[in-house]
Amino acid sequence: MGVRRVAILGSTGSIGRQALEVIEALPDCLGVAALTAERNVERLAEQALRVRPDLVAIADSALAEDLSARLRGTGVAVAAGRDGVRQAAAMEQADVVLGAISGLAGLAPVLDGVRAGKTVALANKEPLVAAGTIVMEEARRSGARILPVDSEHSAIFQALRGCDRREVARLVLTASGGPFRTRPPGELETVTPQEALAHPTWQMGPKVTVDSATLMNKGLEIIEAHWLFDMPYERIDVLVHHQSVIHSLVEFVDGTSLAHLGPPDMRLPIQFALCYPERPPRRWATADLADLGSLTFEQPDLERFPCLALARRAGEAGGTAPAVLNGANEEAVALFLAGRIRFTEIALCVERALEAHAPVARPTLEEIVTADEEGRAAARAAA
Amino acid sequence: MGVRRVAILGSTGSIGRQALEVIEALPDCLGVAALTAERNVERLAEQALRVRPDLVAIADSALAEDLSARLRGTGVAVAAGRDGVRQAAAMEQADVVLGAISGLAGLAPVLDGVRAGKTVALANKEPLVAAGTIVMEEARRSGARILPVDSEHSAIFQALRGCDRREVARLVLTASGGPFRTRPPGELETVTPQEALAHPTWQMGPKVTVDSATLMNKGLEIIEAHWLFDMPYERIDVLVHHQSVIHSLVEFVDGTSLAHLGPPDMRLPIQFALCYPERPPRRWATADLADLGSLTFEQPDLERFPCLALARRAGEAGGTAPAVLNGANEEAVALFLAGRIRFTEIALCVERALEAHAPVARPTLEEIVTADEEGRAAARAAA
Repeated sequence: MGVRRVAILGSTGSIGRQALEVIEALPDCLGVAALTAERNVERLAEQALRVRPDLVAIADSALAEDLSARLRGTGVAVAAGRDGVRQAAAMEQADVVLGAISGLAGLAPVLDGVRAGKTVALANKEPLVAAGTIVMEEARRSGARILPVDSEHSAIFQALRGCDRREVARLVLTASGGPFRTRPPGELETVTPQEALAHPTWQMGPKVTVDSATLMNKGLEIIEAHWLFDMPYERIDVLVHHQSVIHSLVEFVDGTSLAHLGPPDMRLPIQFALCYPERPPRRWATADLADLGSLTFEQPDLERFPCLALARRAGEAGGTAPAVLNGANEEAVALFLAGRIRFTEIALCVERALEAHAPVARPTLEEIVTADEEGRAAARAAA
Repeated sequence: MGVRRVAILGSTGSIGRQALEVIEALPDCLGVAALTAERNVERLAEQALRVRPDLVAIADSALAEDLSARLRGTGVAVAAGRDGVRQAAAMEQADVVLGAISGLAGLAPVLDGVRAGKTVALANKEPLVAAGTIVMEEARRSGARILPVDSEHSAIFQALRGCDRREVARLVLTASGGPFRTRPPGELETVTPQEALAHPTWQMGPKVTVDSATLMNKGLEIIEAHWLFDMPYERIDVLVHHQSVIHSLVEFVDGTSLAHLGPPDMRLPIQFALCYPERPPRRWATADLADLGSLTFEQPDLERFPCLALARRAGEAGGTAPAVLNGANEEAVALFLAGRIRFTEIALCVERALEAHAPVARPTLEEIVTADEEGRAAARAAA
């Protein structure tokens, strides 16, 4: 392939920075068309000066002038506000749009990329969780290809290549189990944000790391998998696998499975999605099974981690329910990180929000945004 | 698909009997065109009376009359001798030929099936080990498809579907490690045939079970994998995995892998090969990872198990060397089972035979048969 140019939506976050590392290491395959950020103008400018994209966009318009000043004379165009970010997602120069914005803010630009028929490498969970029907319908219409960046969904995508769908019995998402896998349930009440942010295997942003500790992350991944692989919820399971080496499995109707394995390093699924169907050679440490010695597996403890069941319930309810789940969870995690609620109250806030909500079937984008706000408000009220 | 009719070469052995079980359980997909056996006339007749194939063949001609008498009035045709078995392999009524004869005796009929352009499901290692060039050349010429039945090669075949060959870095064959994986090397001298026949995970015939104990089985599988997947020896590795749940792995150039998993049950790869590309639903217990709890991995101990390195060396030498290795090993295993040599002398006999042999490059079938006999004689002489 020639050089494939990537618009990175959310380039200053954890996934965005790792994506830039992947791209800069493969100058013959990958280039940067655009970079966008919410408000980290310093890092965004530093990245832009290094890789010289066609366009940078900063969501917080108040910072546009600062950004322009930092990039003066470089020829890099500067766009501002939510519309600036959306401009990056649909720009002609981009072959691939990497959706790496955290939260529902990523939905509109991802949809723009999808509508423009781009290959969309999706790390941002919320577009599919909150608006799966709409995103998938638009992708069918435009012919856009959606490639997962989550290691779990990338693993399933890789295991499914070459399979006939009739062979597939179920998808099994593996979960590290987070930092509290073995903590007695009674002690979860007093968990601090610092403890929740110390993930045993993965290096990720704070929101995702807390979601890993509550297992909400896995719950959201169940909903994502439902949309990405058109799989009913009862055929998507979760298996706790502490070492995060088997990234997920596809179980076939005969009872055998294909598992995708690798080190817990997000650069690998990012690179896979950006280069697909090419697979560049290894540059990072691999997972040597003999060195590891053993891989362990256990059923998830649904009582200790109620978020997993809440997410499944919201997915099965469908319509606006997953948007409420997601909005309530984002709010509850923020409240927990701010020291305003206990760790165990995250699930309670989400549960209250879901209980208070009457789902709208086949919602419009506006109804999804309203449901998200409703979820946030309900979580705040429950806190 | 319609009913696919199978000629089972070696129907009274372990693989043949399990294949019949698979076929009889799937009457809408599979039927029996022919059954053949070396000399177990009683079981062969019993099988034929049950499944009513078009043809049965008994390799030992002296038993043909007995077989005919047992099948009188059934309409099942009876053939005798090596030519009778070969007739079954090439018969028009067979869509698939299952090569489940033990040893080099399987070579000629497998080649007949290949030349007739059949789909050949290959459980019999020796045709590829001893005559890989010839078998693969004939398959290219006739368009015959060779599908592996060994769980390891079936795993690799399944993991490779949908991959581009340029993605593949290496193949990793898993090995249970056999019953002596943890036995101190000094105690291997006194191992009895009974101990060698007590395999920890797989139910197999005696020859294969001893080969699993010496790890020669894995060595032969390296050579098979070389031919089946057109892979250089330096890119085929072995990993000891005691539970035999991960059946093998394909490692990609980016350092990630796809692994095929399932319970250690030969009926699964047999069924996969016979029904391919269909995959019938599960009928047997599966391997539940949470129930298993953990999977373990270690490097093979090449000093304790010298047969592994001997096989690799013979494979790399090429030409007639693998035929000598295989002939010497068959003879040495027979001598061990008869109580005539020690367990540790199996490897010594094979090593002597290889050392005494000057390999012929690109051998004819006759040269391969001669090399096999040379290997056997050298093993006997070394005993």
